[in-house]
Amino acid sequence: MTTPSRRDLANAIRFLAADAVEAAKSGHPGMPMGMADIAEVLWNDYLSHSPKNPKWFNRDRFVLSNGHGSMLQYALLHLSGYDLPIEELKNFRQMHSLTAGHPEANHTPGVETTTGPLGQGFANAVGFALAEKLLAQRFNRPEFEIVDHRTWVFMGDGCLMEGISHEAASLAGTWKLGKLVAFWDDNGISIDGKVEGWFTDDTAARFEAYGWQVVRGVDGHDPDSIKAAIDAALASADRPTLICCRTTIGFGSPNKAGKESSHGAPLGKDEIVAMRAELGWPHPAFEIPEAIRDGWRAVNAGTVREDAWNRLFDAYARQFPEQAAELTRRSHGELPEGFAAAADAYIAKVAADGQTIASRKASQLAIEAFAPLLPELVGGSADLAHSNLTLWKASTSVASSDPDANYVFYGVREFAMTAISNGLALHGGFLPFDATFLVFSDYARNAVRMSALIPAHTIHVYTHDSIGLGEDGPTHQPVEHLASLRYIPNNDVWRPCDAVESAVAWRAAIERREGPSCLVFSRQNLQHQARTAQQLADIARGGYVLSDPPEATFDLILIATGSEVELAMQAARTLEQQGTKVRVVSMPSTDVFDRQPPEWREGVLPSWCRRRIAIEAGTADFWRKYVGLDGAVIGMDSFGASAPADTLFAHFGFTVERVVEAARALG
Amino acid sequence: MTTPSRRDLANAIRFLAADAVEAAKSGHPGMPMGMADIAEVLWNDYLSHSPKNPKWFNRDRFVLSNGHGSMLQYALLHLSGYDLPIEELKNFRQMHSLTAGHPEANHTPGVETTTGPLGQGFANAVGFALAEKLLAQRFNRPEFEIVDHRTWVFMGDGCLMEGISHEAASLAGTWKLGKLVAFWDDNGISIDGKVEGWFTDDTAARFEAYGWQVVRGVDGHDPDSIKAAIDAALASADRPTLICCRTTIGFGSPNKAGKESSHGAPLGKDEIVAMRAELGWPHPAFEIPEAIRDGWRAVNAGTVREDAWNRLFDAYARQFPEQAAELTRRSHGELPEGFAAAADAYIAKVAADGQTIASRKASQLAIEAFAPLLPELVGGSADLAHSNLTLWKASTSVASSDPDANYVFYGVREFAMTAISNGLALHGGFLPFDATFLVFSDYARNAVRMSALIPAHTIHVYTHDSIGLGEDGPTHQPVEHLASLRYIPNNDVWRPCDAVESAVAWRAAIERREGPSCLVFSRQNLQHQARTAQQLADIARGGYVLSDPPEATFDLILIATGSEVELAMQAARTLEQQGTKVRVVSMPSTDVFDRQPPEWREGVLPSWCRRRIAIEAGTADFWRKYVGLDGAVIGMDSFGASAPADTLFAHFGFTVERVVEAARALG
Repeated sequence: MTTPSRRDLANAIRFLAADAVEAAKSGHPGMPMGMADIAEVLWNDYLSHSPKNPKWFNRDRFVLSNGHGSMLQYALLHLSGYDLPIEELKNFRQMHSLTAGHPEANHTPGVETTTGPLGQGFANAVGFALAEKLLAQRFNRPEFEIVDHRTWVFMGDGCLMEGISHEAASLAGTWKLGKLVAFWDDNGISIDGKVEGWFTDDTAARFEAYGWQVVRGVDGHDPDSIKAAIDAALASADRPTLICCRTTIGFGSPNKAGKESSHGAPLGKDEIVAMRAELGWPHPAFEIPEAIRDGWRAVNAGTVREDAWNRLFDAYARQFPEQAAELTRRSHGELPEGFAAAADAYIAKVAADGQTIASRKASQLAIEAFAPLLPELVGGSADLAHSNLTLWKASTSVASSDPDANYVFYGVREFAMTAISNGLALHGGFLPFDATFLVFSDYARNAVRMSALIPAHTIHVYTHDSIGLGEDGPTHQPVEHLASLRYIPNNDVWRPCDAVESAVAWRAAIERREGPSCLVFSRQNLQHQARTAQQLADIARGGYVLSDPPEATFDLILIATGSEVELAMQAARTLEQQGTKVRVVSMPSTDVFDRQPPEWREGVLPSWCRRRIAIEAGTADFWRKYVGLDGAVIGMDSFGASAPADTLFAHFGFTVERVVEAARALG
Repeated sequence: MTTPSRRDLANAIRFLAADAVEAAKSGHPGMPMGMADIAEVLWNDYLSHSPKNPKWFNRDRFVLSNGHGSMLQYALLHLSGYDLPIEELKNFRQMHSLTAGHPEANHTPGVETTTGPLGQGFANAVGFALAEKLLAQRFNRPEFEIVDHRTWVFMGDGCLMEGISHEAASLAGTWKLGKLVAFWDDNGISIDGKVEGWFTDDTAARFEAYGWQVVRGVDGHDPDSIKAAIDAALASADRPTLICCRTTIGFGSPNKAGKESSHGAPLGKDEIVAMRAELGWPHPAFEIPEAIRDGWRAVNAGTVREDAWNRLFDAYARQFPEQAAELTRRSHGELPEGFAAAADAYIAKVAADGQTIASRKASQLAIEAFAPLLPELVGGSADLAHSNLTLWKASTSVASSDPDANYVFYGVREFAMTAISNGLALHGGFLPFDATFLVFSDYARNAVRMSALIPAHTIHVYTHDSIGLGEDGPTHQPVEHLASLRYIPNNDVWRPCDAVESAVAWRAAIERREGPSCLVFSRQNLQHQARTAQQLADIARGGYVLSDPPEATFDLILIATGSEVELAMQAARTLEQQGTKVRVVSMPSTDVFDRQPPEWREGVLPSWCRRRIAIEAGTADFWRKYVGLDGAVIGMDSFGASAPADTLFAHFGFTVERVVEAARALG
């Protein structure tokens, strides 16, 4: 082999993909084979990255939204010099390998986000591009374009069929994200076969309707055609670009190219032999000739690129030392010095004020208090700003070019909102929050799961947390949502009982870098609870003793969260008048409580006391983990109803009488 | 007042809405006031319905997708003569009233579907229109257009921003649903204010890209303009129509019209006084002059319409008695005679065959067995037909004009798929099922909830039910989904352990008219379990004793579902060899088990036996409701991983050794 052709370079991807899937007896060869030529042009001629430093801050972001084609990304990372040796590719989809079935951020160097659930990678990419725009307008100075990179995203028909593609594309157009470039792998095939039976959109016209630049009719196997399209994308200042690439799925497979049979299963040994003949690729599996490797090497160019940027940044730091320090801090995800002390002071103040307000209002006050300390905070709501109470005094729309832009008017797009939050967090430089009614966390459900799986440091604010929202009725009243969100692994759910716990919950969510937090707030007012200094500190444990009887002992434990804590406190008083000695446990976060050392948990819920009643206006059964078979739960077993909140709480049994009755029934 | 103008008629809606919201101190006056003129034209000049018989089969379906404007629908129902007296409107949003905060099917006469969660009403409407198309091509005969009605849907900016609008509109275009007409309430306002900051789509162009006819530039306050648009819609044979209506939110309110302040709160007493002056409406709240009532009366016309159809249907029945009987049966949601016996026979056969196959394969065999008995079965998958195994021999795409069309290629659109299922079920004449991977039930989550809330007799098929799917990894491996779906009230979840339980689950889902069922199946093979005739019958109880020790007693209960039942059986054998006497309980449906009489539940899980271990490759904590604080759970507390299934089961502790160890630890 002399100088390899572009096609030769692309074929390296094709064979790495086909051979790895064959070795794993599992995977998706068709997409990598179909998009190999596009990827080759993009990565070798355009992508600005530095393989030796996958975390270089000003790198371009590359997102594989059609994540089932993971071998495309692994091949690209391997060939261009990331720390992903060929052994890892041979171990595709095996336990503990770096080459998981779908690309996983925080697992494989160079993978920017976890993809596979279709459409979400695209929405993450919109978050990346928004992050870039916001950082650029905040930190760049004349002659110092220190934030200046693009976001490239590959997407298939599946991504485009998903509803989230509509939400995300619409926002990208509205925000004029000119540095976002999406490649549509228009191969006419999805898992069920030829898409013409179920996907007849004029996708190009659709994206133009969102305000995108659309490059039509690109031959996805012709490097010149691809280059011309990318050049057109580079020339677009204020419109994101969709490049429509006609491709053949499984390109190179003599018998399976263009067919759904190449999509999601090994091609088979014989077919791979035939493919070697077809593409003129005599090399054994996982052996890449040096000449081909030479054509892919990107380490040196990357280092040169990064060095140049470092020099620019050093000059910037000399001229704008504060901004440089701030960008560095934010890019590392570190909180500003003094945050903890300021948070302590704020929480102490809230405790001293003792206001009886809705916890959504307490949330807004917490945002108001913390936002000035955290310029990295960028938040918004899915068209419920005045219900979620997510606006604060210094809110400025990200649609503007204001350097301090920090508020996102997401419109009614819960799913894209949440996936964009994940993108903002993954990009670095931001601590994003998003907001909607708790019941509509359903619309964003899989993106919340992805926050936890990635994991992304995001904050999901959910107000109107129970039947307590009243007249809007059962379509708007969450029941199963608290339990369902708690069951997402690595997701911290908080449901504070008053303004004080609300402030602590916000602080915990801000400080927790290991994953997302869901902050769940009431529509209605919640009574302030008095606490000692120790109790105030104990809130951060997730569950703590809010009230014990004057005697040293007790014979009943009431466990409650949110709006039901004041009911538990009232019931405790009534029960105590009747001679029952009651401990009241406030449990704003079961997730956090469950992580406490056994001594703490035993101290709060001693195993000798089996007379326990949990009270929460959500799924009753969830609480069996704390009250067991011997205790009782006052919760919801049905949907809510449409009526004023007080009427509903009485109707569904959230009353002192019912608690007293349940206590009596426990014997 | 002499003959009232069209505007006068529309103003009746405006004041009923404004006054009812005022009385309730809660609600959304802006939309009814904005869409009143459109509604007046549609309901008085076009809508084919019969107020005295809201269930008349051939009625037009009217859907208020922007369901927060519920007072629009209540006003229309009241004025046109449905059984919704003025007292109910005075009781808007109060406990037990027929005028819930958002429209609820099966609660208020004339409400076709429950709306409020934005975009879903629109997708339900696509389901209605698909149902009409399919029934027409199945049952109509020359000169007997017995199925011939339209679906009209009102939608706002919020519906259009939601991703589900993309999925549903795309399918409606592909299916050429010419009898579907959507009115876009283009008022330029959403809750956060003027939509120009977050909603800049060219919606008309977007819908044209889906193959819709779009009528642009309609003045939503000019009856002639509205009529011309509807006439254009009626003329469209094979394209659904979007009518873009420019309206003023809160039309008639001197100070709040055109502003978001009219959207979701009472206008206030003074403003309503001013509005009475502005619109020349001197009548007190809830008093509608007779002349206005005369202009709205639709009972007689409806009865005439219905009578004419009844005569047509009688003639049809004489000429096509079988078809008429079949349509009647299907429209009543009754199963065919003999279904129960046939199901018994099939289940007995599956038990006798004793095949060890994947439960997704067993599901396909059950579909194959039941579908010929149930021409009302219409099903499909979100582009996973060959993974979910939802195709059967007689499958024919609904995109065709085949009279037996019964299969829906939904493409990758889980949310619209599920909401369309709800629409098909609500329309009548169909028993719909839909399918995707269990993890992607997340994408459809709120529509599954709506199935249960409405309730709609739908079947949701979810395959690839655990880490057992293997190499696709954590993005595709459900963990919390089983528990989360079980927590949706009125939703029956089944996770069968073998082909026999799979057949029983399908039968239960078919026979359950009270709401939806989720059928959860494995990717991998599941061992056949032997059962006595009594055990076979007991599966339908949701939980039953699969195995007891030879001795009359036992000292440990293992509870398991799905793929973990064979592990429980193996562990039981090992434990018995070690001298522990073990009962094994198979619990394919906790929902159904929980509904059994106490004696049954006590018989299966006697309270004297607290040594219990639950085994399920899903959220561990869910099972505390059965094992309490004294038992143990072998379940998942984290996300899965990417590796072959066997490796994963071992890695996450689903092994005989671990069960034995857990039993020992219980003492």
